[in-house]
Amino acid sequence: MRIGDAPSTNLSDYPFTHRIRVRFAETDAMGIVHHGRYLPYLEETRVEYLRSIDHPYTATRAEGIDFSVIEVWLSYVAPCCFDDEIDVHLRIGAVTRATFQLHYLLTVGGTMRTSAITAHSAVNSDGRPVRLPTWLSALAPSP
Amino acid sequence: MRIGDAPSTNLSDYPFTHRIRVRFAETDAMGIVHHGRYLPYLEETRVEYLRSIDHPYTATRAEGIDFSVIEVWLSYVAPCCFDDEIDVHLRIGAVTRATFQLHYLLTVGGTMRTSAITAHSAVNSDGRPVRLPTWLSALAPSP
Amino acid sequence: MRIGDAPSTNLSDYPFTHRIRVRFAETDAMGIVHHGRYLPYLEETRVEYLRSIDHPYTATRAEGIDFSVIEVWLSYVAPCCFDDEIDVHLRIGAVTRATFQLHYLLTVGGTMRTSAITAHSAVNSDGRPVRLPTWLSALAPSP
Amino acid sequence: MRIGDAPSTNLSDYPFTHRIRVRFAETDAMGIVHHGRYLPYLEETRVEYLRSIDHPYTATRAEGIDFSVIEVWLSYVAPCCFDDEIDVHLRIGAVTRATFQLHYLLTVGGTMRTSAITAHSAVNSDGRPVRLPTWLSALAPSP
Repeated sequence: MRIGDAPSTNLSDYPFTHRIRVRFAETDAMGIVHHGRYLPYLEETRVEYLRSIDHPYTATRAEGIDFSVIEVWLSYVAPCCFDDEIDVHLRIGAVTRATFQLHYLLTVGGTMRTSAITAHSAVNSDGRPVRLPTWLSALAPSP
Repeated sequence: MRIGDAPSTNLSDYPFTHRIRVRFAETDAMGIVHHGRYLPYLEETRVEYLRSIDHPYTATRAEGIDFSVIEVWLSYVAPCCFDDEIDVHLRIGAVTRATFQLHYLLTVGGTMRTSAITAHSAVNSDGRPVRLPTWLSALAPSP
Repeated sequence: MRIGDAPSTNLSDYPFTHRIRVRFAETDAMGIVHHGRYLPYLEETRVEYLRSIDHPYTATRAEGIDFSVIEVWLSYVAPCCFDDEIDVHLRIGAVTRATFQLHYLLTVGGTMRTSAITAHSAVNSDGRPVRLPTWLSALAPSP
Repeated sequence: MRIGDAPSTNLSDYPFTHRIRVRFAETDAMGIVHHGRYLPYLEETRVEYLRSIDHPYTATRAEGIDFSVIEVWLSYVAPCCFDDEIDVHLRIGAVTRATFQLHYLLTVGGTMRTSAITAHSAVNSDGRPVRLPTWLSALAPSP
């Protein structure tokens, strides 16, 4: 598995936060958010993060590059419920020439609900891997 | 509104039936199938219907034509639950040069749960309306 | 069909507006928002509307009442795309002792994309219809 | 992370297979199945597996036990497209007194698309962890 250690549980390690309110449509018959509904939360947060650093994903896509999802890992610590306001905290993880990882902590009212990692590659319109854009490689945490 | 009278509630008016089993992911915190989850059921049934008359939707799309959804109506008579086997009954409704309607009855164990109508137009790869394929116009019920 | 005339297309008839940004997960292989993804947009807007009039839906549910969806109608005028900011405009439609309707206009940058109506009944925890809460009946437009 | 080694890529290690056809609603604007749509495929396959061993999930839920998802891992090797018939292969992974893991390989026409692991705990109606049912513990692979 390419995805390595679990993400930090220290909120101060996460420079970006995006808030999402749970829709009723995202709950299931257990009365909680369905586990499959968190991946779109992570995606929405990625998109807002890219916008916040002046590289909106629509611009990247307009240049013919998509950030394909190649691997994900999620740990569900405690459930979220309808109408909860989830704070999704994001930081950059490992970056290679062709891939990058993002780490996420999801909290509600400051208490942890879910942690997650997503791994991505840059692909062209044929779905072929290409080098990451320079601005993206430059985001790699210093070793 | 283009969509007119409610669909027939007589099962024998429906020449095609497709069975779908409810996924847990399709339920909500009321313990029943979320009302937004029925549209993909109708879509899956349309696709199986087109396959059954030897015009698979993948072939139509490969020719550069999509069947855009322009209007929908659904009446939720009784709920469906996790693991229910839903029989989706389909018939052709009104057909014009550029649009067609489909009528649906959804039953579980023979009892009615939902009725629905969807209206579609044929569009090319730019999203512009085009004439219906001849085979599709030919499906129009005789007046 | 209980749902009657098409909703007004005059934005000034709609006292409440809620903005939703399209997630990538809500698009489909036609490159646009999938038609089934609008129902959760309407739901999210209803929930925000109820919060705005100091009757949050969580409070109504805590009292043992759900607003069941009994009928929906949507007309897709023009597509929405990834990252679009959709303004969902809402107004109250017909109200009876046990049911109420909501009308919606969805615009992006002021141009119309979709109009919709949803009809609801109040149900108790057994799914049985009950009278609408008084505050809800009082929202009925004067005749 | 509780989830350990990557799942076997040897199809003969997987005793159960369930076929799912991709819905159009499950695709995204990249023209492929959205990465978030695989979790419901895994869930549907778990449910069919439990039915196949005469322990339908509805029976377990009727006894007041849910199998909560506590961790997931997915590796997306190659994309799936609209109308693909995906064979989801399932085997039991690690089993403890209170948790169990499932491994999955997803293939289309015999070629690998995705591999995955899900980890679950048994919880009662309050969401509290309880011991696995005896029949489930008995499924643990011999060491």
